[in-house]
Amino acid sequence: MIDVCLLGTGGMMPLPNRFLTSLLVRYNGRCVLIDCGEGTQIAMKKKGLSAKPIDVICFTHYHADHISGLPGMLLTMGNAERTEPLLMVGPRGLEKVVGSLRIIAPELPFEIRFKEITTDEMSFSLEGDSQFTITAFKVNHNITCFGYTMNLRRQGKFDVEAAEAHGIERKYWNSLQKGEVIVSDDGRTFTPDMVLGQERKGIRLTYVTDSRPTDSIVANARGADLFICEGMYGEPDKAQKARENKHMTFYEAARMARDAGVKEMWLTHYSPSLVNPMEYMDEVKKIFPSSVAAKDGRSTELLFTQ
Amino acid sequence: MIDVCLLGTGGMMPLPNRFLTSLLVRYNGRCVLIDCGEGTQIAMKKKGLSAKPIDVICFTHYHADHISGLPGMLLTMGNAERTEPLLMVGPRGLEKVVGSLRIIAPELPFEIRFKEITTDEMSFSLEGDSQFTITAFKVNHNITCFGYTMNLRRQGKFDVEAAEAHGIERKYWNSLQKGEVIVSDDGRTFTPDMVLGQERKGIRLTYVTDSRPTDSIVANARGADLFICEGMYGEPDKAQKARENKHMTFYEAARMARDAGVKEMWLTHYSPSLVNPMEYMDEVKKIFPSSVAAKDGRSTELLFTQ
Repeated sequence: MIDVCLLGTGGMMPLPNRFLTSLLVRYNGRCVLIDCGEGTQIAMKKKGLSAKPIDVICFTHYHADHISGLPGMLLTMGNAERTEPLLMVGPRGLEKVVGSLRIIAPELPFEIRFKEITTDEMSFSLEGDSQFTITAFKVNHNITCFGYTMNLRRQGKFDVEAAEAHGIERKYWNSLQKGEVIVSDDGRTFTPDMVLGQERKGIRLTYVTDSRPTDSIVANARGADLFICEGMYGEPDKAQKARENKHMTFYEAARMARDAGVKEMWLTHYSPSLVNPMEYMDEVKKIFPSSVAAKDGRSTELLFTQ
Repeated sequence: MIDVCLLGTGGMMPLPNRFLTSLLVRYNGRCVLIDCGEGTQIAMKKKGLSAKPIDVICFTHYHADHISGLPGMLLTMGNAERTEPLLMVGPRGLEKVVGSLRIIAPELPFEIRFKEITTDEMSFSLEGDSQFTITAFKVNHNITCFGYTMNLRRQGKFDVEAAEAHGIERKYWNSLQKGEVIVSDDGRTFTPDMVLGQERKGIRLTYVTDSRPTDSIVANARGADLFICEGMYGEPDKAQKARENKHMTFYEAARMARDAGVKEMWLTHYSPSLVNPMEYMDEVKKIFPSSVAAKDGRSTELLFTQ
């Protein structure tokens, strides 16, 4: 199960009733934040969520509306007496940008580790959990910008008959099920594939803001349980503006959702000029019926379906 | 008349219903902001105020809760197509801190001018308006920190009899009343003091956050129409904590208000742990009756009284 909370849905600048776009993802005690604009820590508190346990902050890019809340967030984590290291992931320049912003947050009781994305696509797992992977993939904005896909793999069912046929003692079953390779007391080696059936469908979540439509987005969102995508403009006459500013209209996002065959799409990152995103959803749903004009704080649990 | 709006009342970190402490002062088309923490631009929008016309931003000090909202504020001003120069005032290091934060707001359509406070007390006027002065005065925090007093002077009444006795033509009266020195067509020099009565009581506003009580505060707030002062702690048992963290209790602020003979005091910059500041006001008012536990967005107009 993956817990997803879209903390804000605004683009460009925070508004009284619309925080900047940011996503909090929780899985098995792990906590990943994507982007941290001005006010993201307020949006978290509003949802009763604590900043302290965040393991990773991924940045799509370094426009202010996606990172301006970082110094405050770090200090709030520090005030909560966090001591565990924090991993930050983002495009080249990450350490420089964070270092520069930290002029007002120089002292923290925890270490910050940096992982810069240096290729068009890069995957990594969190320490000690190979089942959950995060993939950054390049999108198309006016500065280097990445989308993120999170994959929670689901291994095959444990095959008791196969385990017995291999003569594997019961005490090793649990470890094998967890994916570990076992050397038994009598020197034999057992691998998980000996006892696990075919890998089952996992959970996939794809998040994209600040981009024109790209093939990389469709490929990464392929079959996603949830596709969260920017929709800067709902007004049909803003297609040209979307192209100029390297953003998307609701309709472009919906076409990608349809092409990628996702289960559900949430629109976010609305222009401050877009007062009522709901207004355009009838047309959007004609393209992709499972489209949602998300509001701040929209949450869901993504579950295994097989 | 001076328009005052206390945009937020929080200290340390913004909360869902409490923005960080920041003050907006408007006078005669001029607009001065003191401090700009994370969310200050949201607080302004909530009050229907625009960031675009801000002429000056004064910083008390460079702890994040007083400046973390600057990059977003600057970009919002830029997006509103402001082109007029913006003055920033603050302790030494101002240009360095602002430059460092601007890594995420590098391009702005307006110039920023800096005025660093290099002495314990420094006064200045806004260009073209000598009646309104801003005085920065050193307070006592764990880093260099300043309070601000704004003074709107009020000149004496125009003395028609004196003007006529000096033989000053009517066409010069208005200029003299505005404080200008006149050289008449026939070469005579007239100065305002020849036609203006004794200076009348003006308006004084003093603003202090992040300090222990100091003589400089009492001296600066002397006779102020409004004294806005931090009260980090309301709980009587937090006097020691206030001393350690170089902050104040409500009671310490009230004693300064009383000693300075101010008209009214507003408390602000509450600790996040202080849920209901009202709870302590009975005791505070025993020390200084015109004390107010301010809430976000509290506004008033300060008027000439003579």
